Amino acid sequence: MPMGALPLRLPSLSLLRSPSPPPSLLSCPLSLTSRLRHLRPRSHSAHISRGGARKGISARSLAKEEVSSSATPSSDRKPSLSYEGSVTPRSVDFNSWYLDVIASAELADYGPVRGTMVIRPYGYAIWEAIQEYLNVKFKETGHSNMYFPQFIPYSFIKKEASHVEGFSPELALVTIGGGKELEEKLVVRPTSETIVNHMFTQWIQSYRDLPLMVNQWANVTRWEMRTKPFVRTLEFLWQEGHTAHATAEEAEKEALQMIDRNKKFAYEQAAIPVIAGRKSRAETFAGAARTYTIEAMMGDNKALQAGTSHNLGQNFSRAFGTQFTDENGQRQHVWQTSWAVSTRFVGGIIMTHGDDAGLMLPPRIAPIQVVIVPIWKTADDKSGVMDVVSSLKDLLLKAGIKVKVDDSEQRTPGWKFNFWEMKETPVCLTFFSNEMVKNFYQQQCNSIWSSKL
Amino acid sequence: MPMGALPLRLPSLSLLRSPSPPPSLLSCPLSLTSRLRHLRPRSHSAHISRGGARKGISARSLAKEEVSSSATPSSDRKPSLSYEGSVTPRSVDFNSWYLDVIASAELADYGPVRGTMVIRPYGYAIWEAIQEYLNVKFKETGHSNMYFPQFIPYSFIKKEASHVEGFSPELALVTIGGGKELEEKLVVRPTSETIVNHMFTQWIQSYRDLPLMVNQWANVTRWEMRTKPFVRTLEFLWQEGHTAHATAEEAEKEALQMIDRNKKFAYEQAAIPVIAGRKSRAETFAGAARTYTIEAMMGDNKALQAGTSHNLGQNFSRAFGTQFTDENGQRQHVWQTSWAVSTRFVGGIIMTHGDDAGLMLPPRIAPIQVVIVPIWKTADDKSGVMDVVSSLKDLLLKAGIKVKVDDSEQRTPGWKFNFWEMKETPVCLTFFSNEMVKNFYQQQCNSIWSSKL
Repeated sequence: MPMGALPLRLPSLSLLRSPSPPPSLLSCPLSLTSRLRHLRPRSHSAHISRGGARKGISARSLAKEEVSSSATPSSDRKPSLSYEGSVTPRSVDFNSWYLDVIASAELADYGPVRGTMVIRPYGYAIWEAIQEYLNVKFKETGHSNMYFPQFIPYSFIKKEASHVEGFSPELALVTIGGGKELEEKLVVRPTSETIVNHMFTQWIQSYRDLPLMVNQWANVTRWEMRTKPFVRTLEFLWQEGHTAHATAEEAEKEALQMIDRNKKFAYEQAAIPVIAGRKSRAETFAGAARTYTIEAMMGDNKALQAGTSHNLGQNFSRAFGTQFTDENGQRQHVWQTSWAVSTRFVGGIIMTHGDDAGLMLPPRIAPIQVVIVPIWKTADDKSGVMDVVSSLKDLLLKAGIKVKVDDSEQRTPGWKFNFWEMKETPVCLTFFSNEMVKNFYQQQCNSIWSSKL
Repeated sequence: MPMGALPLRLPSLSLLRSPSPPPSLLSCPLSLTSRLRHLRPRSHSAHISRGGARKGISARSLAKEEVSSSATPSSDRKPSLSYEGSVTPRSVDFNSWYLDVIASAELADYGPVRGTMVIRPYGYAIWEAIQEYLNVKFKETGHSNMYFPQFIPYSFIKKEASHVEGFSPELALVTIGGGKELEEKLVVRPTSETIVNHMFTQWIQSYRDLPLMVNQWANVTRWEMRTKPFVRTLEFLWQEGHTAHATAEEAEKEALQMIDRNKKFAYEQAAIPVIAGRKSRAETFAGAARTYTIEAMMGDNKALQAGTSHNLGQNFSRAFGTQFTDENGQRQHVWQTSWAVSTRFVGGIIMTHGDDAGLMLPPRIAPIQVVIVPIWKTADDKSGVMDVVSSLKDLLLKAGIKVKVDDSEQRTPGWKFNFWEMKETPVCLTFFSNEMVKNFYQQQCNSIWSSKL
């Protein structure tokens, strides 16, 4: 049974307000699914072998990083915590909890430049799950992927009056290229409406060229002063859709369709209840006629803007002269939209679903839905255990479940359990031989839900 | 039968040397597959309706762009050519042919900043086909995707002596952020070995953390003076793999494995015969101990470096202090590799397979393998035609074939044929009713391989 076919129960807003996790999330849609830590007493951690001292980044070091305004590398960040006990309870300090979760689950780390973020493999895999889903949906609705350059002539930004006002304070500027001072400063894209319109003006001639509907997956830069991993970083990843239409009605319909797309994604894939609506004039995107967003409520009762869709009207088409000849031979400015979902959404997932103990991932977004930890002592053990493990793995893969077999020999089973628990893999299955059950393992892990040979 | 299961016949190097297309490519692996233009006399183009005047970029305007060194937008680029006759024959002028093909198939366009490129949907879809294949292979060999920030402190670049020497002339530098002059200039990544090592140094403690094998799909910037779409642009897209190992042997094995991966990809997916080998000392990557590349021969008998894999030795780990504790408790520097395939590969595909008439795509890389153009006159016609078309579409999709039904009503069938011919879709199927066959269509398109209701 593929995961996609299962109904997802959503936490209600009132449940999100409580500091403990909403019960509906504890009972996962897959009957297999269970949170390892709820089935296993924390005390087993005493048996865990740590291997080399693992580095983490503590809430304190992250907070310090956040207020530093220097662009120089901070090489003095010291490891402070290993896994166990590293997460400040959510109910005690939400912000520290958030940073601790990111560190302990190895979702992200700080880049050497203030406010930048390294997205580590497990965090990036969550972003890939988001991409995978949205990318298919965008194509189904007729949008093509493409790529616009990230360097935008400074003069472009100034063409749309409210756009320049909104983005000027946040720009990163390239002034030197190939060892020489540039004649015109280049803006590292904070968003692409200006360069998109410059190109659309060349591609759109007649009504037959409309609608033009494209999307790009890209990095963008905004010189934010107060940063927070995933939520607000100097550079982030996103998709930005850009469309041009022949009529105002079509553009409005597209803007609404895309915010609805976001809403469905939040509900059905990320299990995040959101409210879709129109932003006030003051909060409208710099250059848009109307801005629609989805707003999600985080565990600290604060709202997070988790996706946007702008009806740009003719603001950019007038500034850039993006016109088409209509069916009556008249020249008209196109009507446009732009819409985006960014890596901020990963932050939203963490802050919606996590609990006192740490990360908690909605099954459809979880990079690994089932992890299998085979355990053996002798070569005979191993071959028997691995036979069962591989047939189960194949079975799960066929059912569309993302499964990982952790059979590395460099780490102990205890280390692996701890590792996957911090990553909050929805299901952990252990396989070991009868011999081992009797002699060694059962005593230590008797509360782990497991299958025995 | 999925495309992947079919044997691909490769053009030999001697065939590539001839100005006409290698015959082995004309007989495509799929029996269905045929190049529309070889089955249909060019004269049919007389019947083609053009709709609105489509813009193109001519070889002349592209060449002009190439020598311009100003960073200001060039808004004076004028449309010069429509599809028919727009491609300079390859045998006449290879460079003009290349630029014409890119323009007429709408693969890319120039960005407003000198040397930058907009990758248009059809060109981007070729890149997506490359990504899709490699991404799976990288994961199969144990590499995880992640993302490193693109801004690198200038001081990092200076840490590895030959790296700074190699990359200094090509750097784009951000000197202003959020309206203020920065204390330290930031390099827009030309490649990520320095920032990767800065982070690896924090993540790697013991031999248990090795090998560390990651990859990122990202944009990079190199301030090239002579640019050419796809082949050499100021900003380009690529994947860059970065690995750290406990021994020199492991690193060498990884470097060789990844160049072999590239070679197989070139042969099996892109149908490009390449020679894999080690570069001379002078041509070794700035900072590497050994550089392996795959070299492909283009239609103008020039070699194109189409993929790289570097054994970095301990050059970066010594510069950045990336050490691990080995099994005997000794501190050692890690051994590293990096490897890449970029959007340049799209240029390689064009220059290997194209012929006098224009673009030619290897079936496995073609974004659309079969296009179906349904034709109807009356509503009755339409429902009958579309019934057959949709069942065929489903059949092809099930067989793993990328199919597109072009049933838009804004364009005439003639326009569509021309459009898909310039995109060099391997197969074009036409469906129309008996009525139309008799009255109108058969006379004009009698040489098109088509099915009739």
